[in-house]
Amino acid sequence: MSRQAPEVLARAGELVRPALIEAVDRLPGELAVPVRYHFGWTDAHGAALPERSGGKGVRGALAVLSAEAAGAAPEVAIPGAVGVELIHNYSLIHDDIVDGDVERRHRPTVWKVYGTDNAVIIGDAVMALAFEVLLAETTPPRAAAAADLARATAAMIAGQSQDMTLHSRPSVSVADCWEMISLKTGALLNHASAVGAILADAPTETVQALRRYGDEVGRGFQAADDLLGIWGRPEVTGKPAGNDLRERKRSLPVTVALNSGLPGASELADLYSRDHLDEEDLARAAGLIEELGGRSATAAAARRCMENALEAVASAGVGPAAAAELQDLAAFIVDRDH
Amino acid sequence: MSRQAPEVLARAGELVRPALIEAVDRLPGELAVPVRYHFGWTDAHGAALPERSGGKGVRGALAVLSAEAAGAAPEVAIPGAVGVELIHNYSLIHDDIVDGDVERRHRPTVWKVYGTDNAVIIGDAVMALAFEVLLAETTPPRAAAAADLARATAAMIAGQSQDMTLHSRPSVSVADCWEMISLKTGALLNHASAVGAILADAPTETVQALRRYGDEVGRGFQAADDLLGIWGRPEVTGKPAGNDLRERKRSLPVTVALNSGLPGASELADLYSRDHLDEEDLARAAGLIEELGGRSATAAAARRCMENALEAVASAGVGPAAAAELQDLAAFIVDRDH
Repeated sequence: MSRQAPEVLARAGELVRPALIEAVDRLPGELAVPVRYHFGWTDAHGAALPERSGGKGVRGALAVLSAEAAGAAPEVAIPGAVGVELIHNYSLIHDDIVDGDVERRHRPTVWKVYGTDNAVIIGDAVMALAFEVLLAETTPPRAAAAADLARATAAMIAGQSQDMTLHSRPSVSVADCWEMISLKTGALLNHASAVGAILADAPTETVQALRRYGDEVGRGFQAADDLLGIWGRPEVTGKPAGNDLRERKRSLPVTVALNSGLPGASELADLYSRDHLDEEDLARAAGLIEELGGRSATAAAARRCMENALEAVASAGVGPAAAAELQDLAAFIVDRDH
Repeated sequence: MSRQAPEVLARAGELVRPALIEAVDRLPGELAVPVRYHFGWTDAHGAALPERSGGKGVRGALAVLSAEAAGAAPEVAIPGAVGVELIHNYSLIHDDIVDGDVERRHRPTVWKVYGTDNAVIIGDAVMALAFEVLLAETTPPRAAAAADLARATAAMIAGQSQDMTLHSRPSVSVADCWEMISLKTGALLNHASAVGAILADAPTETVQALRRYGDEVGRGFQAADDLLGIWGRPEVTGKPAGNDLRERKRSLPVTVALNSGLPGASELADLYSRDHLDEEDLARAAGLIEELGGRSATAAAARRCMENALEAVASAGVGPAAAAELQDLAAFIVDRDH
């Protein structure tokens, strides 16, 4: 990370993690062990780890900030923060199966440790748990939050599914790729950025402005992630260098380059049509994508998303403290080391 | 089936199927096609099939009956019926991956047709859709129904997970097996039998009595299914004969036999410890299970569940028409051709 983690991540983590741990404790033992492993709380056998190597909890922090932006106490957001973190993490567990990824957060993925069959059921359990936690009470704000989580989860899955089909399509437009990104990553960050306000029973306009913020942060994050997938350093990303190219993902930089209409695009298309790319091919592909404008256009898109996110915060009519933290968090999420 | 399908299945199907089709239509195309295929509405390419070869819609029918049992119009149950059918069908799609089953309802399973990776995402989409449909409105009965669906889904997954771990345990007690059955199959039928009444805002005692009915029907169904898994005819079950033995499942008849303490149990244990069972081994194992009382005890358990289910109906204080239909449906579900 090029930036220091904003204070809100630690603050929200303190608030959300105990509730998340309590939620996971509701699972039967044989499911709780791999889920705790996935979160980085324990090793593969269930022994506690001295340091927490889990995710950054960005979605939980967004939920907390969105309650505060609506003028509510941060605690109001907790069930929403737990719900969105659980949905995010079920999707990681299943995505790693689908993508065949063997490492996440510098550790073997759940399917790699516990087997694919178990990883399917483990992910299912985490998804169901999200709704169980959010609906442990059935007040109108809880019901509205759960409905929004269901909508966002469905949209995210539609995005994952589009992502998988883009692979095999002969040509993919930049607009298709952008729509996929909006669904795959934007939808759940839209929810995360709104759920605290929903639980706080905030006015519709506030919720809508926060949703726009989340959409933009999500798209900006994915654009940045797509850059890291090609040019990120393995010690930062926790994945092998050039991983997205090796898997011939139709990420945004690649899609921009393939659609550039410039000489070089056909060479890139040819490389992308091969069954296997060696290290030299990977370097050549990365060079072509950069030459064809894929890198700079994606970086510009990420910056544009950042600006739009800040505008959305400004329009949300939230207090200066919450606004500043939303801005910091957006910058941290989008403006990564690429 | 030894019995004719009760009229309520057709009646509920007429009511529920259009809403189920409408729900599936909300999925993006690349997800809707395999889901329609799974339900038996279309072939693998999305072409409509002349005859509907899908499931019997038992859970949707239970939901409809439970609304009627609570004195409400059957239409009240529709979102609950759609929700529980979607959860049931997501679990079938994922279970077929986990069990490596290549056929369901006499057709190739979803993972077999569309690949494992797609089947993971397809199942996820169907689970999320269930909550999306149920929470399309967020009235208190809808929220209560969704909360109950989340609880039941989590319990069902816990049961699936227990089922998978039973496989590898050196010894499994009959009580462990029974608990697994109660979770894996009972929990969702408990929900199905109550959700119509929940949506109808029925008194707690009615809902509770209907839940008991559903638990018993679920356990009875699973006991009957375990018998079919060994002694069912392939043309009835849609699965190869002796399938559960081939996969060395710790089903109820097997568990009873292994725990019988009688001579022959050790021979069965020895067969079950092998990597591969040929046709002769399968026949020998089935013979041993019968000899050791596994078949008759499981059949008796199914009958006992039926009696308990009928008692629960009698205690629910529901009208005679609904009571008669609940009884017929229980008999149809439990009292199968075994």
